[in-house]
Amino acid sequence: MSSTDPHRIFNFGAGPAVLPEPVLEQARQDLMALPGVGMSVLEVSHRSAVFEGILEQAEADLRALVGLADDHHVLFLQGGASQQFSMVPMNLLGADRVADYVLTGAWAKKAAVEAAKFGQVHIAATTEAEAFARVPAVDELRLHPDSVYLHVTSNNTIVGTQWPMLPDVTGRPLVVDASSDLLSRPIEAVRCGLVYAGAQKNLGPAGLTLVIIRKDLAAQGSEDLPATLRYAVAAEHGSRYNTPPVFAIYLFGLVMRWLIDTGGLSAIETRNRRKAKRLYEVIDGSGFYRGTAQPESRSMMNVTFRLPTEELEQRFSTESAAAGLSGLTGHRLVGGHRASIYNAFPEAGVTALVDFMSEFERTHG
Amino acid sequence: MSSTDPHRIFNFGAGPAVLPEPVLEQARQDLMALPGVGMSVLEVSHRSAVFEGILEQAEADLRALVGLADDHHVLFLQGGASQQFSMVPMNLLGADRVADYVLTGAWAKKAAVEAAKFGQVHIAATTEAEAFARVPAVDELRLHPDSVYLHVTSNNTIVGTQWPMLPDVTGRPLVVDASSDLLSRPIEAVRCGLVYAGAQKNLGPAGLTLVIIRKDLAAQGSEDLPATLRYAVAAEHGSRYNTPPVFAIYLFGLVMRWLIDTGGLSAIETRNRRKAKRLYEVIDGSGFYRGTAQPESRSMMNVTFRLPTEELEQRFSTESAAAGLSGLTGHRLVGGHRASIYNAFPEAGVTALVDFMSEFERTHG
Repeated sequence: MSSTDPHRIFNFGAGPAVLPEPVLEQARQDLMALPGVGMSVLEVSHRSAVFEGILEQAEADLRALVGLADDHHVLFLQGGASQQFSMVPMNLLGADRVADYVLTGAWAKKAAVEAAKFGQVHIAATTEAEAFARVPAVDELRLHPDSVYLHVTSNNTIVGTQWPMLPDVTGRPLVVDASSDLLSRPIEAVRCGLVYAGAQKNLGPAGLTLVIIRKDLAAQGSEDLPATLRYAVAAEHGSRYNTPPVFAIYLFGLVMRWLIDTGGLSAIETRNRRKAKRLYEVIDGSGFYRGTAQPESRSMMNVTFRLPTEELEQRFSTESAAAGLSGLTGHRLVGGHRASIYNAFPEAGVTALVDFMSEFERTHG
Repeated sequence: MSSTDPHRIFNFGAGPAVLPEPVLEQARQDLMALPGVGMSVLEVSHRSAVFEGILEQAEADLRALVGLADDHHVLFLQGGASQQFSMVPMNLLGADRVADYVLTGAWAKKAAVEAAKFGQVHIAATTEAEAFARVPAVDELRLHPDSVYLHVTSNNTIVGTQWPMLPDVTGRPLVVDASSDLLSRPIEAVRCGLVYAGAQKNLGPAGLTLVIIRKDLAAQGSEDLPATLRYAVAAEHGSRYNTPPVFAIYLFGLVMRWLIDTGGLSAIETRNRRKAKRLYEVIDGSGFYRGTAQPESRSMMNVTFRLPTEELEQRFSTESAAAGLSGLTGHRLVGGHRASIYNAFPEAGVTALVDFMSEFERTHG
């Protein structure tokens, strides 16, 4: 009940989440001292040539993976997506401006709450009445005529929904919280004004926030804002206005290298689709398991499902954990179960879960 | 020209800085999988029992080291001291309030600039006219009668000065940027309303910010503030309102354990004084080297000095680096040289520098 290292179990956690083993192995090898540097990457100056090289390579690899043009900045920040909930409106909104938000889950709601502290929020669509079991269709969006951006959450970790493709809106920038699916498939960044993501699902460890932002938008934040919360300051200083999370950026760079070495975003999408499909097939082929997200909105990253009774769910949690399948209990807001199968989650782990689910249904169904 | 690991050099960098080798070694051993957990600490959920244990132990060890009572919160945040420059006034100041700032260097000035965005700043003292070569004497402070706090920078990394002891002011809380000397000596936290520090000098890796704050002050921030920038929110959620920098907190915990195992804060102060004294003795005993900080304000953490000519300084930088003594070039604002000798910097490295300086003076003096 393990992956290649005999001491590792299968981690279905929603985030912080599993990292690629080659990335961990490289970090382990480098930990006491980077080759030729004589100190750990945990100790190197953020102004040193060695870190400059790490950061520039990481950005170049990300740009190559995404196909990102020079009209967007790549920023390495801190504070998580939750801090972006505030930074976005602090920089782009204002008391006399309005922004569109689409409510597709608890995180989207939090983003809207923070935005309302800095300007007017218009709800362009919400599926809350349906317990967020789906994302809206694009023709359900009712945009405010004067909104300065449209904010969406591309993947909803808690309920297990995902936009099949990002809405194509004209006339205003699209702002995307892509915390739980960025780089899990190709992304049309050119269509996005701003994409942000906490690193701890698909990009690296907790403590790093990635922002991809159109240069004209980055320039908008007022000089009255705190320096650490202005996109323009981070852009001007190459993400080193002050000390960045050096080790997290180094790991992010290793993850980019791993993505390139394993075929890039189309290849990872293929693997992610295959992994998710196997789990949804088990769910759909059974009268025992029941998916909680509407099929057309199902997430490739977080597969959510219920069992016939809460008693059986408790047993499922206990027995799966004992079998080395960790983190399968659902979020407290929706109950049931959630299998988070981000980029680095191994196919062998999906096989193990499929086998476990079949056996559990056979003995308890 | 190395410490115990043959591939490691002596790192005099000002921060991110050297970490204790036992801490790095433990992190290396745990990197692929924490014993008994089956996943790396880079992958564990911030809501998991294992991380809860890590965080609680780290806080308990810090409290034991400092002798911190229950009237202060310990918060694990992100964004570095630079973000605290803003969070402090966002939470404690306001357009109709005034705060005292003491200017003792570039970082203190930045703190005052950020505070002025959120309220009135009164300069209680400044040594800028003396190129910040000393900190003010306590009787030089001219506090504003209505100020709601007094902000000081306990150690000034760039110029190499340090308050011999924190000023004892009554009637208003003391707010201390202790980024570069926290836990290098005992601290009277009970006298402080708020102490903050980026971790990357004495506490751990870059990407973690430690805040020790009196509970009544933490409660002051308005609910209109961004959630991630309110001390009350972090306190209420045990530093897990959103995902914290898990790995950095784990490393911080290992550093606390190392401090306890090596005798606590009095013992580390003794070692730090001994290390600094050896370097200042070389400087004072020579007509060749010249200390840039006034003797009564000299830092135990950052020893700054000049050579007779800039040409000799260039040679010193080149030859010391070639000899495995890294990071001895001074900050661009003051020039010359700086030896940062934080808690984890080994005494063997001081010996190596003393020997190098003596030899350099002999051949070039």
